[in-house]
Amino acid sequence: MIKAGIVGATGYTGQELLRLLVKHPQVTLQAVTSRGEAGTAVARYFPNLRGSLDLAFVEPGVDALGDCDVVFFATPNGTAMTQVPALIDAGIRVVDLSADFRIRDIDVWSKWYGMEHACPDVVAEAVYGLPEMYREETRSARVVANPGCYPTAVQLGFLPLVKNGLVDNSRLIADCKSGVSGAGRSASIGNLLCEASESMKAYKINGHRHLPEIRQGLSAACAGNIGLTFMPHLTPMIRGIQASLYATLLDTDIDLQALFEDFYRNEPFVDVLDAGMSPDTRNVRGTNNLHLAVCRPQGGDIAVVLAAEDNLVKGAAGQAVQNMNIMFGFKETAGLDIVAALP
Amino acid sequence: MIKAGIVGATGYTGQELLRLLVKHPQVTLQAVTSRGEAGTAVARYFPNLRGSLDLAFVEPGVDALGDCDVVFFATPNGTAMTQVPALIDAGIRVVDLSADFRIRDIDVWSKWYGMEHACPDVVAEAVYGLPEMYREETRSARVVANPGCYPTAVQLGFLPLVKNGLVDNSRLIADCKSGVSGAGRSASIGNLLCEASESMKAYKINGHRHLPEIRQGLSAACAGNIGLTFMPHLTPMIRGIQASLYATLLDTDIDLQALFEDFYRNEPFVDVLDAGMSPDTRNVRGTNNLHLAVCRPQGGDIAVVLAAEDNLVKGAAGQAVQNMNIMFGFKETAGLDIVAALP
Amino acid sequence: MIKAGIVGATGYTGQELLRLLVKHPQVTLQAVTSRGEAGTAVARYFPNLRGSLDLAFVEPGVDALGDCDVVFFATPNGTAMTQVPALIDAGIRVVDLSADFRIRDIDVWSKWYGMEHACPDVVAEAVYGLPEMYREETRSARVVANPGCYPTAVQLGFLPLVKNGLVDNSRLIADCKSGVSGAGRSASIGNLLCEASESMKAYKINGHRHLPEIRQGLSAACAGNIGLTFMPHLTPMIRGIQASLYATLLDTDIDLQALFEDFYRNEPFVDVLDAGMSPDTRNVRGTNNLHLAVCRPQGGDIAVVLAAEDNLVKGAAGQAVQNMNIMFGFKETAGLDIVAALP
Amino acid sequence: MIKAGIVGATGYTGQELLRLLVKHPQVTLQAVTSRGEAGTAVARYFPNLRGSLDLAFVEPGVDALGDCDVVFFATPNGTAMTQVPALIDAGIRVVDLSADFRIRDIDVWSKWYGMEHACPDVVAEAVYGLPEMYREETRSARVVANPGCYPTAVQLGFLPLVKNGLVDNSRLIADCKSGVSGAGRSASIGNLLCEASESMKAYKINGHRHLPEIRQGLSAACAGNIGLTFMPHLTPMIRGIQASLYATLLDTDIDLQALFEDFYRNEPFVDVLDAGMSPDTRNVRGTNNLHLAVCRPQGGDIAVVLAAEDNLVKGAAGQAVQNMNIMFGFKETAGLDIVAALP
Repeated sequence: MIKAGIVGATGYTGQELLRLLVKHPQVTLQAVTSRGEAGTAVARYFPNLRGSLDLAFVEPGVDALGDCDVVFFATPNGTAMTQVPALIDAGIRVVDLSADFRIRDIDVWSKWYGMEHACPDVVAEAVYGLPEMYREETRSARVVANPGCYPTAVQLGFLPLVKNGLVDNSRLIADCKSGVSGAGRSASIGNLLCEASESMKAYKINGHRHLPEIRQGLSAACAGNIGLTFMPHLTPMIRGIQASLYATLLDTDIDLQALFEDFYRNEPFVDVLDAGMSPDTRNVRGTNNLHLAVCRPQGGDIAVVLAAEDNLVKGAAGQAVQNMNIMFGFKETAGLDIVAALP
Repeated sequence: MIKAGIVGATGYTGQELLRLLVKHPQVTLQAVTSRGEAGTAVARYFPNLRGSLDLAFVEPGVDALGDCDVVFFATPNGTAMTQVPALIDAGIRVVDLSADFRIRDIDVWSKWYGMEHACPDVVAEAVYGLPEMYREETRSARVVANPGCYPTAVQLGFLPLVKNGLVDNSRLIADCKSGVSGAGRSASIGNLLCEASESMKAYKINGHRHLPEIRQGLSAACAGNIGLTFMPHLTPMIRGIQASLYATLLDTDIDLQALFEDFYRNEPFVDVLDAGMSPDTRNVRGTNNLHLAVCRPQGGDIAVVLAAEDNLVKGAAGQAVQNMNIMFGFKETAGLDIVAALP
Repeated sequence: MIKAGIVGATGYTGQELLRLLVKHPQVTLQAVTSRGEAGTAVARYFPNLRGSLDLAFVEPGVDALGDCDVVFFATPNGTAMTQVPALIDAGIRVVDLSADFRIRDIDVWSKWYGMEHACPDVVAEAVYGLPEMYREETRSARVVANPGCYPTAVQLGFLPLVKNGLVDNSRLIADCKSGVSGAGRSASIGNLLCEASESMKAYKINGHRHLPEIRQGLSAACAGNIGLTFMPHLTPMIRGIQASLYATLLDTDIDLQALFEDFYRNEPFVDVLDAGMSPDTRNVRGTNNLHLAVCRPQGGDIAVVLAAEDNLVKGAAGQAVQNMNIMFGFKETAGLDIVAALP
Repeated sequence: MIKAGIVGATGYTGQELLRLLVKHPQVTLQAVTSRGEAGTAVARYFPNLRGSLDLAFVEPGVDALGDCDVVFFATPNGTAMTQVPALIDAGIRVVDLSADFRIRDIDVWSKWYGMEHACPDVVAEAVYGLPEMYREETRSARVVANPGCYPTAVQLGFLPLVKNGLVDNSRLIADCKSGVSGAGRSASIGNLLCEASESMKAYKINGHRHLPEIRQGLSAACAGNIGLTFMPHLTPMIRGIQASLYATLLDTDIDLQALFEDFYRNEPFVDVLDAGMSPDTRNVRGTNNLHLAVCRPQGGDIAVVLAAEDNLVKGAAGQAVQNMNIMFGFKETAGLDIVAALP
């Protein structure tokens, strides 16, 4: 058993970490922090945890977290970077679910996130925690930058094509639809049920922060430049990302189905559906699974990859637990062996 | 490990049994039947089970189910009663999630369900599987009649009041709101998303089949007559029952909060919330928990009990697994130790 | 044509007033105020109004509203009472959609609303704008207190029974379910799509502000005391109130269907459905109609009245327009002749 | 006043025609047909019409429709083609909301719709009723083929680019998201609330019937070939289509905003939003408006057009009424001057 802490557990990714970690067979939850709710029993604040967790929120800081083997940051961008250096100095390993350590180019990060970075040296050592790309590096990482929700789906969808040099990398298109939980658990008019249900729209049409993250990952995969049009859409549901990815094939003779199945054959959480099936977010809801499909409509030269994940699990907390499992040598599926509840 | 079969697994209660049983530590799924889908891989039909279940649907019958220790019926009313006698003759124990064995008075059953009963003798021996009332009888039962979704919430809500003779039993009111999954997984215009979402209405206003079931249970609890107005409402969500129960107190000096807490202190799945809290269906979604609260608005003589459950879990498949656990001497919470996913 | 102003038009009732008034055949929108959005084009803020309204929000005050014949307050409680006296002194008639002028007993109002009242004398002259009760008084009113959403449905549902002395007034029960728009358009975590959808719960279980308003109205109708248990529930939809009302009949020989049909025969917006039908909120969505049904389940002595309305129309802005029509001698249905859009 | 009939009014497009036509200032509803519901009062079947329509459904046929000036077909594909010849012989003009007369190439139609065409000669004379393209031809048409829901949004979105030769026509991509009402009002498991809500997926990934219709229209606009990848997605809401359209610009110097504004300047129902805004389906819900936006993310050579419409109005019944208005010389906006209800 290792001891885990969660910083910022009152948001949606923190809430989901709580759900996963209280049932993880090799983890004891040691500390759950929240500035606003310090002193409140976690199970009073989140009644779904009644009977499963007997902790109160505490103030964040090394004091609260010093006994932990691993600390998860489920905080707004800009928070982890101020606290992580002290933790790793104290020998605590970190999985950061925010964006603080995802972008290697500090200038790019500052431009998109609108602030100075507090610890560029930690960025340099942090491992980008997409296990399907960086599993080996993750084993010994002190700091894992857990990928964003969209970047997980888009990178894993494009990866077999881009890494194998099969498509025109200059005009990739990612049309992504996310449930409202992707916007986080903060009070905002735009995410009220009355505003966001019975409605569909593209948002951040002039540039979403996940664009540089996706470009960085796919560029690394092909060792070249990536031209990507990334269009996120707010979808009237709680959880789930559906991504439809479009790329122009350089050669239409390839058997895309076989390519994808081979590429992900040994991955525990990436599942290539049978030909003709379409990934549906509800089939992966609450789980760490990513469902993929690939097709070539009308036999043309456009490859379409369809992906479905739960933005809070494979797109956030579940992938964070998967990374923890890798870091500590646990079975990679430990605590993540969940069947989606239908309907 | 025992071997379990499911008859009629393509509906919502069957689907939920699948989810729970594939992860149950003491159960092997032996046979899953469906007339319409015989031959189809279950995980092809329900893609949420990909990687978790390697069975195909088979035709129902003793041939398919003969090796089972327990068989669950998740069939429409009227099916189990034709198949159960042969199974129990073969030494197989049965948990029936339909209404075939719930009503002891055969005439009442026939009137409300519109058919002759095929095996009144099995009704006579069947145990009504509400563990909080009939746990002991369930241990040795050959046939358990798993309670209906509304009857579970309404009986458990009224029970502390009725059993203790604290209220006027002649004018109980149960105003119940159910998610649409309560209507089952059959094609009907009324349950289309376009008809049932963004809408709220009472239905079956002149009498719902769960009325005699609730009356039977509460009458047994108080050894007297029950006058009950039961009004079900179709609520625009997938899962969940919220019940608001109203009763006139015979004596307003009673400490209702203490009464309820004491009454359910040792029940693993009935949770009386702190005073002032209101049970919310989302906090029990996907779990076998029933959340209860009790209050006396404006200090008057009307007691209001609020209950929330997942109609497919504590109201159906979860309670069926709980009953199986009791029948086979497993820990009562085995396979049901689930935290609701929020949001 | 009269000139109308709206104070506080960025909330849901204001938004709905805008929709109704821009198409009203006898109204010109003269001024739409908002402190926060002064200077912004209304149709930029609410793109549904593009092409229908060419006004910008202005700062509130007599300056902005001095040319109006009628001003609607769609403001939080406590705002109208500070501005209405100056407006009526200037000869402007007022329809207040907030609660400031609804409760005649100032002490009761202060207790439930938590503030001192700024103009008790205006309360004394204000007419409670439930046309089915106070149509005549409304014609000449300077200030109309537009009823709350729940009080509209509950009073109109109980009225035929209570006014005719047919039920035990000491134990009325109103179990009400409201869409989330009833909570208004302010940023709050509890009303986020992720919190309020796929969920059902009672709220304000120890007392909702609409309780004294309903009691006042029904007490006036029966010239006696009313004992009411009022339980509101947050329902996962945008619009609509469904109310299920329970009362004990003093005499079960009455023909309830005929009673209700006669009672509301001449009302343009109250529609008693055929026996056996159940009011569904979607059938009145976006309209000023209230659908009613009445039944006596199992032929017992409990009368159940079912009501459905759109909380933002008959429960707020539509009733406000209806009141304006009465005040200015327009046809009562002017601007309100709308068919609900199904699905 | 003209007399109108509706064939097949029990589906969603028929229901929407009823809503629009009962309030149309120049139309009297003469006959509403339904085989299954003949004899039932329409307002009993659709309670939203109580008080607005005093007709019963009748059996279809020239007998019922002979007095009409115009007949709308809101029937499944394959029905109108068997009945329209007799009607036009009787001098009745027709607007067909099904696909029977949309595709000029009979072989293409037969291939995609899986049946022989019953009256190719009527196809030859039918006018494709997209007013923004064929307004003049519509004025004198005997038969108008009302466009499909997706084709309306996709064609109007691409039209300014394609007609002006500004993009690579060989690799257009249309990623479209539709509410569930697009699937029609027939009982199917896939469209149950429990299956379609809280879920997102692409469907008909190997080819949707609207593909040849869109290709035909855009090919006509550019007098050339169109290569189109069209991917429809089932979105968890009742109404609305959001389309995100991607095209490679041949020249990035063009001012796309000005181009679009100019192109649609005189269109009453196509509204180009201000730069930076994103069309949201709720802003056009229940209305005949199409909202458009155009942008060039990151200043690259991919033009993105965003479109939002109500699939049942501009995508079906509203456009049908618009076509009727054109055919009979009414003001084009008659009966369609509606403000979307927010929220």
